[in-house]
Amino acid sequence: MTITPSGIWKDIETIRQESPLVHNITNYVVMNTTANALLALGASPVMAHARNEAADMVNIARALVINIGTLSDPWISAMFTAAARAKEQNIPIVLDPVGAGATPYRTNTARDLLHAAFPAIIRGNGSEIMALCEATAATRGVDSGLAPDLAIESARKLNRDFGAVVCITGETDYIVSQDAMISIKNGHEMMPRVTGLGCTATALCGAFAAINPDFPMAAAHAMAVMGIAGEMAARTANGPASLQLNFIDTLYQLSETHIHAWLKLGDA
Amino acid sequence: MTITPSGIWKDIETIRQESPLVHNITNYVVMNTTANALLALGASPVMAHARNEAADMVNIARALVINIGTLSDPWISAMFTAAARAKEQNIPIVLDPVGAGATPYRTNTARDLLHAAFPAIIRGNGSEIMALCEATAATRGVDSGLAPDLAIESARKLNRDFGAVVCITGETDYIVSQDAMISIKNGHEMMPRVTGLGCTATALCGAFAAINPDFPMAAAHAMAVMGIAGEMAARTANGPASLQLNFIDTLYQLSETHIHAWLKLGDA
Amino acid sequence: MTITPSGIWKDIETIRQESPLVHNITNYVVMNTTANALLALGASPVMAHARNEAADMVNIARALVINIGTLSDPWISAMFTAAARAKEQNIPIVLDPVGAGATPYRTNTARDLLHAAFPAIIRGNGSEIMALCEATAATRGVDSGLAPDLAIESARKLNRDFGAVVCITGETDYIVSQDAMISIKNGHEMMPRVTGLGCTATALCGAFAAINPDFPMAAAHAMAVMGIAGEMAARTANGPASLQLNFIDTLYQLSETHIHAWLKLGDA
Repeated sequence: MTITPSGIWKDIETIRQESPLVHNITNYVVMNTTANALLALGASPVMAHARNEAADMVNIARALVINIGTLSDPWISAMFTAAARAKEQNIPIVLDPVGAGATPYRTNTARDLLHAAFPAIIRGNGSEIMALCEATAATRGVDSGLAPDLAIESARKLNRDFGAVVCITGETDYIVSQDAMISIKNGHEMMPRVTGLGCTATALCGAFAAINPDFPMAAAHAMAVMGIAGEMAARTANGPASLQLNFIDTLYQLSETHIHAWLKLGDA
Repeated sequence: MTITPSGIWKDIETIRQESPLVHNITNYVVMNTTANALLALGASPVMAHARNEAADMVNIARALVINIGTLSDPWISAMFTAAARAKEQNIPIVLDPVGAGATPYRTNTARDLLHAAFPAIIRGNGSEIMALCEATAATRGVDSGLAPDLAIESARKLNRDFGAVVCITGETDYIVSQDAMISIKNGHEMMPRVTGLGCTATALCGAFAAINPDFPMAAAHAMAVMGIAGEMAARTANGPASLQLNFIDTLYQLSETHIHAWLKLGDA
Repeated sequence: MTITPSGIWKDIETIRQESPLVHNITNYVVMNTTANALLALGASPVMAHARNEAADMVNIARALVINIGTLSDPWISAMFTAAARAKEQNIPIVLDPVGAGATPYRTNTARDLLHAAFPAIIRGNGSEIMALCEATAATRGVDSGLAPDLAIESARKLNRDFGAVVCITGETDYIVSQDAMISIKNGHEMMPRVTGLGCTATALCGAFAAINPDFPMAAAHAMAVMGIAGEMAARTANGPASLQLNFIDTLYQLSETHIHAWLKLGDA
């Protein structure tokens, strides 16, 4: 399993040409920014959370992104309805277990979705991945200081048990799948100071999974694009708000030359 | 029916002076950006969706904007309650049938609202207008390649049957009313890559309808301001995020000279 | 009670070091921008509104911010649940009675929350504070022209009856507490043209109250930081959108020198 600039670029071109519809059931905080990221990349986002239309929307989508950032019971119900239809239609599901470990409600919902949806890709930070795996007691929030080994072990277990590609994002991003592990060292330390860039990473997984059925590659390409665009955006940012603005503009402008020049793979 | 720079400018001055309260029951994705657009133009936005206060909020508003972008049953209920009060109070209603045609839930809700509210103005893209008119099978999303003739025919039918001014936005914007059709050729190709600019166009219709009872003129003025501000904003934009930022700043700065210099009417 | 640049700076340093978790049950319009403001300042925001997890989230938070901007019954229920747990745990509550006075639903909810939560800090504009106090008939919206005396009287009454520090924001900000009143003259006239900067002021009260148990000082420091960052941001803003962007970047960059150079206290 090798990630290459030309492989990343090929997927970006496909997204820009085909403009795949990505159905998001996501949290209130990030709806606007993740929709804009998908549009800037070249995909077509739709946000729809009513149980009454969840299955119909999945029918016309090419990927389903489920993000539990601001949960409530009616939304959970729609998430399960949408996931069931996506399984029937063989539409890839991407799961973001935002805040798993922080409250039982979130942890349990994330695990229930995992068991029901068997997502193609899971993306979270280390503590969320560990909480999803039940490998750890509840932890929360930013965990940049966490040794990644435990999270990687959890990711491997999630992959074995559920078949999902698991992305652990942090200073280094790890993409864990059956065959191998890819690590990507792009990104910038200011990125965690922008709300929703993790959720954006998840949404981009949806766009790549929509057009590339090789899900480990789709996930790795999404993480690479996130990190590269974030790192490029940070060069001229005065703070988190200009970083967010530059990030979206950079996604829109991203060229093959940029990918070649900026991609930094880890040894893993 | 003639649209002139001085007519547009007169309405903008009135909005800035009177700061009309525009009540929005709109979707989660665009609440922040449409509120900011209304504020930048000079209006006073309020977002309120609880059935418990929908009628009370309409009572103090000068326009009601209903946008079905992220529907659910409690919101639909509030939309009907608010629309009923607006009809009683003779407050203009603007309807945005976001995603009509994409799912039966949206299409049916949009049509039900149309029959209940008899909106002063409807704004959508071509496929949404056609889906609202039942003139076409379900289509969805961006339809820039669509021949506008079919959408215009649907708009004419909606105007005849319901009395609404209908705005079809796209590369050219068409404002269809009983007497005539105005077409406006402002705007920029990057605008569809910003989430919610269509919804912003709808919200601006609310601001203009609040202060100008000649609804065809109000709608045309709103579309002209959208297109001009978007086109001006695009000059220095590096991508969709800086376009969105420049757009809001431009709305705030807009002068009579800008309107005179930039307005591009079509032949229609 | 004296507010000094070094006192403000000490609190900012503590927030940056401890990154306190601030639990927000707030409105849809401002979730993204208030989360970004808290992150830029150095705090850790979480948005969670489900009754199922409200108490669990309060348990791990250091402040609770309740903002009634886009109310509905399930959210109100979660607000009361969260407030009750915060009282039990001695976690400071900050209340923003957005739109109190505009509809009975809002006014009554704001008052009920006041009686149940006994918030540490209340922040609103003059008309909201007066409506909360029942000292005035329903008024609404921007009230910059309002004589501040009536609002200050209401704030004093709220302080006597409920023990809350009351911030009245406007051209001059007034922080009313048992011992004294502080007034701050920072800020910029363009700030009310950005949606949610009032709500951001409230969220910042949460961050300061999380680390400074002297609530009059915490509130005054939050108001000073808002005004200074807004005023600095306005220098290079072309309109409300660049003001909002600069504001977040400025919060991130804020230094002790800035505080010393920009703080403008009133005579009150």
